[in-house]
Amino acid sequence: MVGASAPASAAATERITVDLGERRYDVVIGRGLLDDPATWRSDPAGAAAMVVTNSTVAPLYLERLVHALRGRYRRVHSVELPDGERHKDWPTLNRVFDALLEARCDRDTAVYALGGGVVGDIAGFAAACFMRGVPHVQLPTTLLSQVDSSVGGKTAINHPLGKNMIGAFHQPRVVVCDIDSLSTLPERELRAGLAEVIKYGPIADWAFFEWVERHVDDLLARDPRALMHAVKRSCEIKADIVVRDEREGGLRAVLNFGHTFGHAIEAGLGFGTWLHGEAVAAGMVMAAELSARLGMTDGQTAARLAALLARCGLPVRAPAMTPDRYLELMRLDKKARDGDIRFTLLDGRGHATLRSAPDGLVREVVVAGSAAG
Amino acid sequence: MVGASAPASAAATERITVDLGERRYDVVIGRGLLDDPATWRSDPAGAAAMVVTNSTVAPLYLERLVHALRGRYRRVHSVELPDGERHKDWPTLNRVFDALLEARCDRDTAVYALGGGVVGDIAGFAAACFMRGVPHVQLPTTLLSQVDSSVGGKTAINHPLGKNMIGAFHQPRVVVCDIDSLSTLPERELRAGLAEVIKYGPIADWAFFEWVERHVDDLLARDPRALMHAVKRSCEIKADIVVRDEREGGLRAVLNFGHTFGHAIEAGLGFGTWLHGEAVAAGMVMAAELSARLGMTDGQTAARLAALLARCGLPVRAPAMTPDRYLELMRLDKKARDGDIRFTLLDGRGHATLRSAPDGLVREVVVAGSAAG
Repeated sequence: MVGASAPASAAATERITVDLGERRYDVVIGRGLLDDPATWRSDPAGAAAMVVTNSTVAPLYLERLVHALRGRYRRVHSVELPDGERHKDWPTLNRVFDALLEARCDRDTAVYALGGGVVGDIAGFAAACFMRGVPHVQLPTTLLSQVDSSVGGKTAINHPLGKNMIGAFHQPRVVVCDIDSLSTLPERELRAGLAEVIKYGPIADWAFFEWVERHVDDLLARDPRALMHAVKRSCEIKADIVVRDEREGGLRAVLNFGHTFGHAIEAGLGFGTWLHGEAVAAGMVMAAELSARLGMTDGQTAARLAALLARCGLPVRAPAMTPDRYLELMRLDKKARDGDIRFTLLDGRGHATLRSAPDGLVREVVVAGSAAG
Repeated sequence: MVGASAPASAAATERITVDLGERRYDVVIGRGLLDDPATWRSDPAGAAAMVVTNSTVAPLYLERLVHALRGRYRRVHSVELPDGERHKDWPTLNRVFDALLEARCDRDTAVYALGGGVVGDIAGFAAACFMRGVPHVQLPTTLLSQVDSSVGGKTAINHPLGKNMIGAFHQPRVVVCDIDSLSTLPERELRAGLAEVIKYGPIADWAFFEWVERHVDDLLARDPRALMHAVKRSCEIKADIVVRDEREGGLRAVLNFGHTFGHAIEAGLGFGTWLHGEAVAAGMVMAAELSARLGMTDGQTAARLAALLARCGLPVRAPAMTPDRYLELMRLDKKARDGDIRFTLLDGRGHATLRSAPDGLVREVVVAGSAAG
């Protein structure tokens, strides 16, 4: 049992293997990993490292990471991107290419993503495309990126007409989650990250959902052992799903629970207005409600999910947009097929499935679940 | 023996399999393939097709292809890009993404590349990145793209600091080489394409080099049977090499014979000033000369290669740039490792290998082989 009073030093380093054959890699979770040269000893060999970070994270961790990497690479370069989802676009991606080429980096270079989900997505996509692919390492510094986006090899940038529309599957060589980096995370981002932690229970492990219900105060208080467990269990569930469906043939779409509505919220308000985790929180409530109206799960599940999200200070009502606008935005979702929107819906507790739903029912859920309702 | 007088109808359709396991595909070579719905019958299933072409090719073939594809897809869209290597950049690539999203295309879409190497590279890269990957079909209409760039899955755009710096390995589902499309090819582009045909002999099949020596007049006269054989044998050699080294771990670099010098020429003059094949022609002469100076092949091989290229009206002297400028540009080559330029050099006749060379020797070759010499 994880308790808030347990000494931090008792938390040992955890290691989860994402077993994708020749693309196999570890997710390492622990404290004080970022500064420790031992963390990086088995990283991709190469002449140069390019650390991609942003203007918020750089002052906190860049120098420490560069110092730790110097033992491994002859040259350690870095590039600082503007912070925020609205910068997850081509001009920002191109700054990474500029930096790589100006520093005369070649295929013998490893790209390090130091930051949250936006940095991870941009740096990973840059690594996927630079000279048709170089290795990359994910070093997520936010809760959201530690429990979700850094694992699984999905990389992308946004297009004005849709989120993550341009990207690649490019698995990292290793993911290092330094729990200590969560100590500097703004409160709002911690809460947004909890939305993705909470996601795993309803789709894959109801017992984990109940663990989060019991430990939500520890998590909000940033108790390191509670955070360790939350990150570890989230990564285990994600790794298990990714291994069974690396390129999202079907199963992997369960990870998108709440994301179809969520992406519509993000796109409709303009990327960055709501944090991704906030949009996913409101999106999960709508998806659970849709599941209940389809008779796939009971109303109690949706209510407990909404209550837990609310305890985290996350939005459980979606912003006011017309049902038509929601439908229009959701038809652009990558899971849609020929205009038919497909939702990740709860199928009982601890299980999810991908399916379409009648437009009329979706409209009802939007009206009932949004601020317009 | 291929003769200019043989009836065109005698040339049957040829099929070469690029056996990459689950990414296996065929290269189909023949006449009148583009218009024939039967050609497209086994293409990727899907709701929509997006044909990517350029302003030169569109008036010649777009309508005919769209018509032939209508039997296979419910929706057939197209996007027309500006023609030329200087447009192989992000803004042009983004026009494909714009077109895909504006047409509400989703993962259930196949991208068709109708045109030369630039269209093939852009369309292939767009397919690699759009929603993290959709199928694509290559329909090369130039000799250069039929014998080289359409086969093997290399896709890319240029960066101001280097050619093909941003790209992906993304194998097509099928490559269709319609020999009839070569009838509309401008003379200069036909000759540039012959440079890549000629390349295969010295690196992989000296007997094929001698066949080209004997049939160069037939090829320049666009005799369909000679072109069929040249395209077929080139694709066979390329397929054989790609199958053994899909992601250019080593062997595949032999296909880059002449390209290290050639890319420096293209970048130094500004992309598009010389055609790619022209730059490769002059680059091959320099690379053969460097091979001879390293004692790897005899001077006679380099002389025969230069003579054959000259018969095709291709440049055998590189443009005037200082040796320092050549070295600077070549250090940006993707095969370079930590500043060490690696050249594909002839190792006897019909065999090539990747290695570095002393800077002093490279300077000598540049001085002797360029217009500055």
